[in-house]
Amino acid sequence: MESAALSRIGLAGLAVMGQNLALNIAEKGFPISVYNRTASKVDETVDRARNEGSLPLTGQYNPREFVLSIQRPRSVIILVKAGAPVDQTIAALSDHLEPGDCIIDGGNEWYENTERRISQVADKGLLYLGMGVSGGEDGARYGPSLMPGGSQTAYNNVHDILHQIAAQVEDGPCVTYIGEGGSGNFVKMVHNGIEYGDMQLISEAYDVLKHVGGLSNSELADIFAEWNSGELESFLIEITADIFKVKEDDGEGFLVDKILDKTGMKGTGKWTVQQAAELSIAAPTIAASLDCRYLSGLKEERENAATVLKEAGLSDELGRIGVSGVDKKRLIDDVRQALYASKICSYAQGMNLLRAKSNEKGWNLNLGELARIWKGGCIIRAVFLDRIKKAYQRNPNLASLIVDPEFAREMVQRQAAWRRVVGLAVSAGISTPGMCASLAYFDTYRRARLPANLVQAQRDLFGAHTYERVDRPGAFHTEWTKLARQSGTGVGALN
Amino acid sequence: MESAALSRIGLAGLAVMGQNLALNIAEKGFPISVYNRTASKVDETVDRARNEGSLPLTGQYNPREFVLSIQRPRSVIILVKAGAPVDQTIAALSDHLEPGDCIIDGGNEWYENTERRISQVADKGLLYLGMGVSGGEDGARYGPSLMPGGSQTAYNNVHDILHQIAAQVEDGPCVTYIGEGGSGNFVKMVHNGIEYGDMQLISEAYDVLKHVGGLSNSELADIFAEWNSGELESFLIEITADIFKVKEDDGEGFLVDKILDKTGMKGTGKWTVQQAAELSIAAPTIAASLDCRYLSGLKEERENAATVLKEAGLSDELGRIGVSGVDKKRLIDDVRQALYASKICSYAQGMNLLRAKSNEKGWNLNLGELARIWKGGCIIRAVFLDRIKKAYQRNPNLASLIVDPEFAREMVQRQAAWRRVVGLAVSAGISTPGMCASLAYFDTYRRARLPANLVQAQRDLFGAHTYERVDRPGAFHTEWTKLARQSGTGVGALN
Repeated sequence: MESAALSRIGLAGLAVMGQNLALNIAEKGFPISVYNRTASKVDETVDRARNEGSLPLTGQYNPREFVLSIQRPRSVIILVKAGAPVDQTIAALSDHLEPGDCIIDGGNEWYENTERRISQVADKGLLYLGMGVSGGEDGARYGPSLMPGGSQTAYNNVHDILHQIAAQVEDGPCVTYIGEGGSGNFVKMVHNGIEYGDMQLISEAYDVLKHVGGLSNSELADIFAEWNSGELESFLIEITADIFKVKEDDGEGFLVDKILDKTGMKGTGKWTVQQAAELSIAAPTIAASLDCRYLSGLKEERENAATVLKEAGLSDELGRIGVSGVDKKRLIDDVRQALYASKICSYAQGMNLLRAKSNEKGWNLNLGELARIWKGGCIIRAVFLDRIKKAYQRNPNLASLIVDPEFAREMVQRQAAWRRVVGLAVSAGISTPGMCASLAYFDTYRRARLPANLVQAQRDLFGAHTYERVDRPGAFHTEWTKLARQSGTGVGALN
Repeated sequence: MESAALSRIGLAGLAVMGQNLALNIAEKGFPISVYNRTASKVDETVDRARNEGSLPLTGQYNPREFVLSIQRPRSVIILVKAGAPVDQTIAALSDHLEPGDCIIDGGNEWYENTERRISQVADKGLLYLGMGVSGGEDGARYGPSLMPGGSQTAYNNVHDILHQIAAQVEDGPCVTYIGEGGSGNFVKMVHNGIEYGDMQLISEAYDVLKHVGGLSNSELADIFAEWNSGELESFLIEITADIFKVKEDDGEGFLVDKILDKTGMKGTGKWTVQQAAELSIAAPTIAASLDCRYLSGLKEERENAATVLKEAGLSDELGRIGVSGVDKKRLIDDVRQALYASKICSYAQGMNLLRAKSNEKGWNLNLGELARIWKGGCIIRAVFLDRIKKAYQRNPNLASLIVDPEFAREMVQRQAAWRRVVGLAVSAGISTPGMCASLAYFDTYRRARLPANLVQAQRDLFGAHTYERVDRPGAFHTEWTKLARQSGTGVGALN
């Protein structure tokens, strides 16, 4: 093979995401070699490249030829299932790679696996990037948000390609060098946790509007479309409006009503919640979204519980408790505000989780820049993220989005509506666990004094864990039970 | 040393818990050898045994003499810090132990460490128990709740001792053989997670009564004492009443008001939440209690947030939003009911976590029996646990405590009060994350149809994850965006 014919980059793993990303790269003018263990996938990709405008894409049918077809230092993106398949692909390729070459894993990989592989391939002089890719199939094809972490040198080698293939927003391409080690995967994981939270909050808004407000699917389509032209403008709100427009094939009724209410999931939401616990970061909104996916899966149990409790006189057929006399217009406006305020709290949790991990690992994450690269391409893309970017630009050490002056003002403006929606849902028996969790998070974080003093007293009483005081330093222990007994029974009486 | 002088059992690790458990064993008539690396701790324990009635306790000053002073097959309880100290203690003792002897770790150990050690010591023919011990210092001395898991043979060897030293309730001693492997540690871990939830819910009741109801500490002492004679009767409610009685040394004011509102913690609550996520079990009440401990630790951040948001006009000095005209008597009764209903949901989460792990590991846990051994000795001991025991006796396969006929009836009776309390707290800005989480859990679990259908539609739209239908089997995928665009803009309008 002549040097002139070498590809600029390679991509292995040609499921839909891989195919689309390869076509995206080729379309931007970077000659690319592609490889897949199953030859038909290679043919499929080559066909697509031909049909989509004779793109500079070369199919390869074995690892050696694939690697040798790429110019040095070689960069090879792999897009296979996280876990063992990544290790297998690395093993197959690294026999043929040479020192200075780089492997770029574009899957949703657990960040520690990436850190392990960075060490492993370093023994052979290879570089490594763990690169979060968000945006689904369409994003991969037309512009994803990219979160590459690992070797800075490896990043520099493909910097021009990544800038071209990423989604473009007014302040640049949706890609940046995230940091060392597994930081790219970790950031993508938290992105997904935030995505879980967004989807949960939207589904709660839907539930309240439908079951408390009585809105039809057509009305919901209009409302979400309207919201998409305001502060909530985002990909997820936009597609929600679309979903409510789709009718059944036979034209009878709306498709959304026929979908089984069991939500699937992959591992990233779970990891986010576990990492939050590990790092002592409260992330209740994200956790609530995960819990709802778990509970949604218990369809039969829920149907049984509904029967048992309805028969006991708890609720109506739809599980509602006495819904009546709701002002529809006001409810719609209130729900919009509740959704927005809840979202701020969810993002505050996600950003603080990122900072905690960054501090632990020394990644030096730039939170404002992360918000910026999420403005386009990815599933959580939203106008809102520009406000987050600006909040961190105003103050890179911001303790929480909640105390940014702009967000604080917005929350104060929206809190009455937010409390009305949650209160209404609580009394109507329509659960809004995400909105509740956000509100409780807000109301806990913003209180100078919490009832945690009682918990400390309890812990000191039964476990001699000691406590601190508000008025002087030191650790104190009290013989609570003895003193309480001495105080007699006449301490006070409720009259 | 003559055979007649051999001790029945040994205990190594003489911090307060170890000393107290050793004295408890000796007091029940079982001769015991004790050992600690620091000799002064041994002397201290020997002195206490002499002073507390010439109890049959022998101090030993090196591992070999200690082990040889115990009759075979030897059982040695170790009570040292979880983690490396346990490994070090095992290493020090196992040189002198013989096949058939058993090590019993009484610490709050991560269950996988116990499973690792079971294999390790098995190589030497030694048996192993990981035994959860709850009840704090007093429990250890006068009757703890014991959760031994691991070798059934090892359990049988000390069965008589454990039955004597455990707390005694009307249906037997608070100990049972839990199951194989690390089951004893796992059960203790979930016990602690439930304990976190109970303490959180009580602190929320306190917060609402104090800041919404305006109750004084004396009134709170009376209320909790009164609650302790009803359905809420439990150790934690009892000690809470005591705490509100304790005045400052100088008689000026109550001590509880001077305690800093930062809650400490050890690892068990965190592990519980992480395991719940791992096993796809929703445990939001327990998670909320953990989050509150994390947020309580951010005292300075909270003080800053309180200032920022108060200045923006959000709340009064105490962080409250327009509290007025509350009917105190009704509020007190409502809070009692809200606390009880929230507690049922928290226990439902904990028990379901135990079942999920039992299924995964083949431990065959008996949930009703676990509730029984928690009736006495431990921190969560409560009359309430007898109701849980009976619920599982009625139906060992009960999907959730929520659908047990008795508990379902109780929840239906209390739900109006529960919703009033949470609604009031939401509007007053007094966060009740645990009660909110319990109520959202209840309202999610009892609904036959959740808005998860929308989440599935979203996932199918952006990730082609497919969805199921309510009316026919199969996995379906829809070109949502294309169909929505085709449907035009005139689908419907909100008039």
